Amino acid sequence: MPGGPQESTSQDPWSLSFMTLEWVGDIDGCLHIIDQTRLPQHNQQRILKHPADVIEAIQQLAVRGAPAIGVAAAYGLCLALRGCDQIDQVRALWQVAIAPMRQARPTAVNLQHMVDRMNRVATSPSCTDLDGVSLRNRLLEEARAIEAQDQHFCRAIGAAGAELIQDGATILTHCNAGALATAGQGTALSVLYHAWQNGKRFRVLADETRPLLQGSRLTAWELQQSGIPVDVICDGASGSFFQSGEIDLVITGSDRVAANGDAANKIGTYTIASLARAHDVPFYIAAPSSTFDFSLENGAQIPIEQRSEQEIWSIAGGQRPPKGIGYKNPAFDITPASHIRGWITEAGVLQPPFEAIR
Amino acid sequence: MPGGPQESTSQDPWSLSFMTLEWVGDIDGCLHIIDQTRLPQHNQQRILKHPADVIEAIQQLAVRGAPAIGVAAAYGLCLALRGCDQIDQVRALWQVAIAPMRQARPTAVNLQHMVDRMNRVATSPSCTDLDGVSLRNRLLEEARAIEAQDQHFCRAIGAAGAELIQDGATILTHCNAGALATAGQGTALSVLYHAWQNGKRFRVLADETRPLLQGSRLTAWELQQSGIPVDVICDGASGSFFQSGEIDLVITGSDRVAANGDAANKIGTYTIASLARAHDVPFYIAAPSSTFDFSLENGAQIPIEQRSEQEIWSIAGGQRPPKGIGYKNPAFDITPASHIRGWITEAGVLQPPFEAIR
Repeated sequence: MPGGPQESTSQDPWSLSFMTLEWVGDIDGCLHIIDQTRLPQHNQQRILKHPADVIEAIQQLAVRGAPAIGVAAAYGLCLALRGCDQIDQVRALWQVAIAPMRQARPTAVNLQHMVDRMNRVATSPSCTDLDGVSLRNRLLEEARAIEAQDQHFCRAIGAAGAELIQDGATILTHCNAGALATAGQGTALSVLYHAWQNGKRFRVLADETRPLLQGSRLTAWELQQSGIPVDVICDGASGSFFQSGEIDLVITGSDRVAANGDAANKIGTYTIASLARAHDVPFYIAAPSSTFDFSLENGAQIPIEQRSEQEIWSIAGGQRPPKGIGYKNPAFDITPASHIRGWITEAGVLQPPFEAIR
Repeated sequence: MPGGPQESTSQDPWSLSFMTLEWVGDIDGCLHIIDQTRLPQHNQQRILKHPADVIEAIQQLAVRGAPAIGVAAAYGLCLALRGCDQIDQVRALWQVAIAPMRQARPTAVNLQHMVDRMNRVATSPSCTDLDGVSLRNRLLEEARAIEAQDQHFCRAIGAAGAELIQDGATILTHCNAGALATAGQGTALSVLYHAWQNGKRFRVLADETRPLLQGSRLTAWELQQSGIPVDVICDGASGSFFQSGEIDLVITGSDRVAANGDAANKIGTYTIASLARAHDVPFYIAAPSSTFDFSLENGAQIPIEQRSEQEIWSIAGGQRPPKGIGYKNPAFDITPASHIRGWITEAGVLQPPFEAIR
C-alpha cells in the first residue's frame, strides 16, 4: 500500500499515557492490552496468552476499533504457536487458529484482512522450508510489521486531515476512533491531535455512543489527556447542536468502507451523517486503506453485527427486562457515500474510486 | 376548550395497572404518585404532603410528562393549605406557594398554565367571600377538574389519532408520552392504545431516550402491560431503522407547542424528526391544548432546561468523570413546524394556526 504524505513521518508521535496493545517478549511472549471495558474508572492491563483470550477480548470489546482488532488478531495468531517448536505441530496449530480468529467479529474488515495477511505469510513459498522456530519468528515479525504499519497509517491520516480543522471550530465525533482504536494515534482523533500540534485550537463534542459508551468512556478520556477541550453529549442531543449551528465538522472512523465509499461504523453514525447533510455540515470518514473492502460493491453487502440486548438493558436496571419487552441492538450502521464529504486515508483525503489505495 | 370527537367519550378508558398520580382524602389529604425514577424495577408509591415534596418530585422526574406535571402542580398547591382553616392564613400560604411551584421546571408549559388556572380561581370574585375551608374545597375541586379534563383530553387525543395507525405498521416513539406522563391514558401512547382497541395490530420501536431512559424504563413497561409489541433501541440506532424502511410513522408528545407549531419535546426528538423528514416518514406531535402556548410566536422563545451532567455521567461510572471532561445536557429540543405532519389534539388532528383550540 502506498505511504502517507511525506511530512507525516517526520512528526513526533503524539505522546500517549497508555498503551492500547503491546506484544511483550519474543515468540513465546504474550499480548498485553488495556482492558477498555473498565475505562476510564480502571486503567487495567489484561495479559492474553492464548488465541481464545484474544477472541474473547475482541468479542467483549476489551480491545476494539477496526485497526486495533486487526493488530490484536495478528498477534493473537502468534499466541496459537506458543511453546511449540515442531514445524508439523506449528502448521497444524496455525490451521486450527485461523478460522475462529477471522470470525471473532463480522463487521470490521481489518480483522479479516490481517488474518489473511498473516496466513499468506505462513503459506508463502518463502516459508515452505522453515523450521518451527523460524516460521514463528517470521510470523511474529509480520505481526510487528502490521502494528508498525498501523502506526504509520495513523500518523499519515492525521497529517492528511489536519488541514480540514479550522481554528475555533467545533468538531463532532462518534464512538472512539482514537489511540484506543488503533496501534497508533487513532484515525479520526489523529486528525485532531495533528491539528492541535499544528497550533489549531478547537473543541470537540463527543457523542456518548450508546450502548457501550465508547464516546464518554474512551474518546472523552483520551482527549482530556491530550488537553483538547471536550464536551460529552447524549446521542440524541446532536440534532439540537446541529440546529443551533454549533457543529462545524464531523469526523468519525469506520469499520469497513465498500468500493463505492459507503462506510460501516458504530451504530448512530448514519444518524449524525443524516443530520450533517440536512444542516450542510461536512462529514468525513477517517480510515486507513486496511479498512477498505474493494471486494464489496456497496454498503448493503457489509455484514452488520447484532449484539446482546443486555448491552442496552443493563444500564436501565442491571437485571432482566420485564417479559414482553424486546430489544434491537445492531452494533453498526451504514453511511452512504452520498453523505460523506471525503475519506481521510494515509494517502490523503480521497474520493471514490480511491485509486491511490487500491 | 372544545371537547374531543364525539366517539371518544363513549369509549371505555384503557385499563391501567398503575396510577400515575392520585389525590387521596379530602382537603387534608395528600398526593400519591408512582415514583417513576424507580420504574420498572420497583413499582413504589411516594406520598407527597407538602408543596416542596411535589416540587422535588417534579425536579427529580419522579412525576414527569407535561400533562402530569400540570395536574401534580395543581394538587401540590392544595397541599400548601393542609391543616389550615383561617382564611387570612390560607390566602397567605397560597401566595407563598404559587411562584416556587410555577418555576419547578421551565419547559413544559402545562405547569404554568395549571398554576395560573388555580390562581385565577383563588383570586376570582366568586371566591372573595369564602371562608378558609370553603376556599380550600373550591381549590381542591378545581384540581380535580384539571385532572378530569386531562383524562378527557387523553381519550380524545387517542380517538382523534387512532386512524393514523395502519395495520401492520411500525411506529417509532421517543421518551414517554403515555399514561405515566398524564393523569389519563397518555398522549402519543393514547393514540396507540385506541388503535389497538380498535383492532389494529402494529409494533412499536421505543427509543431508550438518554439520559434518563424514559423510553426503555417507562414506555416499554407501559406498552408491555398492554400487550402491544415493543422493541427498545438506542437513540442513535433510529437512523438505521429509518434507512431500512422499517419505520412507517413517528408520534411523540410535546412539552410546549408555540403558536406557529414549533414543538419542544425531550432531547432527541428533533433528531428523529429530521430523520423522518429525510426519509419522508410522517412525524406527528400528540398534545392537549393545555400544552400549547399561544403567547409564543415560535419555538426559539421556548426556554430549554439544562440539567446536571450527572445524568449523563452516572451510568458510565457512577462516580465523578475525569477532570477536564465537560458535559452538555439540554433536556429538550425544538422540532420546527416544518418537520411536523400534524398536531394530534383533543379537537382532532390540527394544523397551525390551531383555530379549534385557541
